[in-house]
Amino acid sequence: MLTQVRIVGSGLIGTSIALGLCAHGIRCQMVDSDPAAERLANDLTGREKTASPELVIFALPSHAIPQVIEAEFALNPNSTFMDVGSVKNEPLLYVKASSLPLERFVPTHPMAGREIGGAAAARGDLFATRSWVITPDASCSKESIALVNELIELLGASVIKLPADEHDRAVAAISHLPQITASLLAQSLNSTPSNWLELAGTGLRDTTRIAASDPGLWSEIIYSNRAEIAPLARKMHEALGELIAELDDKSAIAQFIDRAGIGRARIPGKHGGKARAYAYLPIVIDDKPGQLAAIFNECKSISVNVEDLTIEHSPGQLSALIMLALSSADAQLLSDHLSAIGWNVHPILN
Amino acid sequence: MLTQVRIVGSGLIGTSIALGLCAHGIRCQMVDSDPAAERLANDLTGREKTASPELVIFALPSHAIPQVIEAEFALNPNSTFMDVGSVKNEPLLYVKASSLPLERFVPTHPMAGREIGGAAAARGDLFATRSWVITPDASCSKESIALVNELIELLGASVIKLPADEHDRAVAAISHLPQITASLLAQSLNSTPSNWLELAGTGLRDTTRIAASDPGLWSEIIYSNRAEIAPLARKMHEALGELIAELDDKSAIAQFIDRAGIGRARIPGKHGGKARAYAYLPIVIDDKPGQLAAIFNECKSISVNVEDLTIEHSPGQLSALIMLALSSADAQLLSDHLSAIGWNVHPILN
Repeated sequence: MLTQVRIVGSGLIGTSIALGLCAHGIRCQMVDSDPAAERLANDLTGREKTASPELVIFALPSHAIPQVIEAEFALNPNSTFMDVGSVKNEPLLYVKASSLPLERFVPTHPMAGREIGGAAAARGDLFATRSWVITPDASCSKESIALVNELIELLGASVIKLPADEHDRAVAAISHLPQITASLLAQSLNSTPSNWLELAGTGLRDTTRIAASDPGLWSEIIYSNRAEIAPLARKMHEALGELIAELDDKSAIAQFIDRAGIGRARIPGKHGGKARAYAYLPIVIDDKPGQLAAIFNECKSISVNVEDLTIEHSPGQLSALIMLALSSADAQLLSDHLSAIGWNVHPILN
Repeated sequence: MLTQVRIVGSGLIGTSIALGLCAHGIRCQMVDSDPAAERLANDLTGREKTASPELVIFALPSHAIPQVIEAEFALNPNSTFMDVGSVKNEPLLYVKASSLPLERFVPTHPMAGREIGGAAAARGDLFATRSWVITPDASCSKESIALVNELIELLGASVIKLPADEHDRAVAAISHLPQITASLLAQSLNSTPSNWLELAGTGLRDTTRIAASDPGLWSEIIYSNRAEIAPLARKMHEALGELIAELDDKSAIAQFIDRAGIGRARIPGKHGGKARAYAYLPIVIDDKPGQLAAIFNECKSISVNVEDLTIEHSPGQLSALIMLALSSADAQLLSDHLSAIGWNVHPILN
């Protein structure tokens, strides 16, 4: 059972883990090669000391693990160790080359993060509802895996077990290639006149959002997983070349867009696991305090649960369009109810 | 002044225009080469007849304009004409080749749409808060431009005037290249194992959202604007090739991601015009009806205006994380207020 955890590295992930564990009464000590970062993280997390931590977490870039591994193992010879890096073959190689026995090391990768880093951006709820991959070697002990599972579940995440090789191939496809694609598109905007950019819709914003990520962190990730990324990037390069060659052929373009729709439909929904089909209820409201409260009061009065909500409005306008995501039954119930009492409700979108 | 409008084409855009205009008491007649589509659109919009419309709207794919232009001009010899296509040089060529005088034709492009098409998906508020580009020729009459401006403003959109050439270059950069990029990435998922896709975060979902768009519509758009798209696509192809060649060079990868961040930062914010900097207040709530209502009631009681909201939760979990976007001052006010009365409020993110 976890009572004490030592966290080596006080960036976003390490500090978020500490914040989440502190809330469960687990004592966490944060250490960092940068004294200022260590002080900040300890201030945020209660400045605890651990004498004999059950678990030591390498919460630093994978390439920095060799710099701390021997000292940490000497200091904590009976602890289980885990890391949290985005690529999983690399730390395994470092551990194999060290004194730390492989049966007490669990490579892990929490599928959570933010576009901004550092202890100040940390949140104890960063991992809530997310997947957290573990890629233990065949020689890894049951006790070590159990400790790591306990930590992940305490933080509100779900454990997914995969071989390290498979993890690295998976994240190349679902995370690293999307990062490269978004970055390619975003850098094409460097020479776009700014009045053109003012015409941009949500499409451009959504496709480039992750391009704002940290270059230091992402160059490490892409570099370290380049063996898995390269074939995917080459395949994409080839597909783009083919499209360019076929721009005079309307049916080839249609097939290109069509194949993309099939790929897109394979991604599970926002809430993990299977995609959930929501109905969407558009309501035009006055853009002033109290309107949303009034709508949510109506939802409550008829026991309708709102799954998600978006708001569209411009600063200069007096009305806003809100879109509630609901189950189909709730959408119909709410639409009838709000219409009857005079709200500006638009037809449900399925 | 607008009193009667004839809309040729009863898809998403044409029917949405009609719905929006009907709400202002303007009589709209919908016509379509497909009798079933025409019947549905007229059922939705009140089945009006127009005898002498001030405005005739070509709400059909640009390549279909030549099939209707002579008959529509013969029927409405005194009307102003406009189109709503995504590419603006093409319709101008068709009009120049027809009997319709150029001074009574206004090419336009509403910057709005949905991933699904057809009259059934139409919404009268589709254009609210959006930009609507007009690209009138130098010979276009003031009266015709005034009529089109009146229509755009009635539908809640903002008029942006651009030369047709410039419009086509702009949408190649901010709309067509993003569509191609998202489609490239989405089609790479066709061979990705589905258990890998279950690890996908919001990054993959956001970068591929628009890949679900209609292949028929998009192949027309890309084909028709291929002259402007080709140089951008070739530049992207070259940049991807360079990245692939540099995957062994960590600092080159960092520069690649860095350039992307600069491009991304140039996109104005969600609400149009200048980007607005919001503060974000995370609150963990029980996932049941009434919680959001209670929070919005508190917002109302202290006159705090919520600008946007996201909700993250999984079906299996009992709590949800909501993130309110607010002005900095409102975020602080609300955070203090909710904390004081016992809500699970987390530190404000700036």
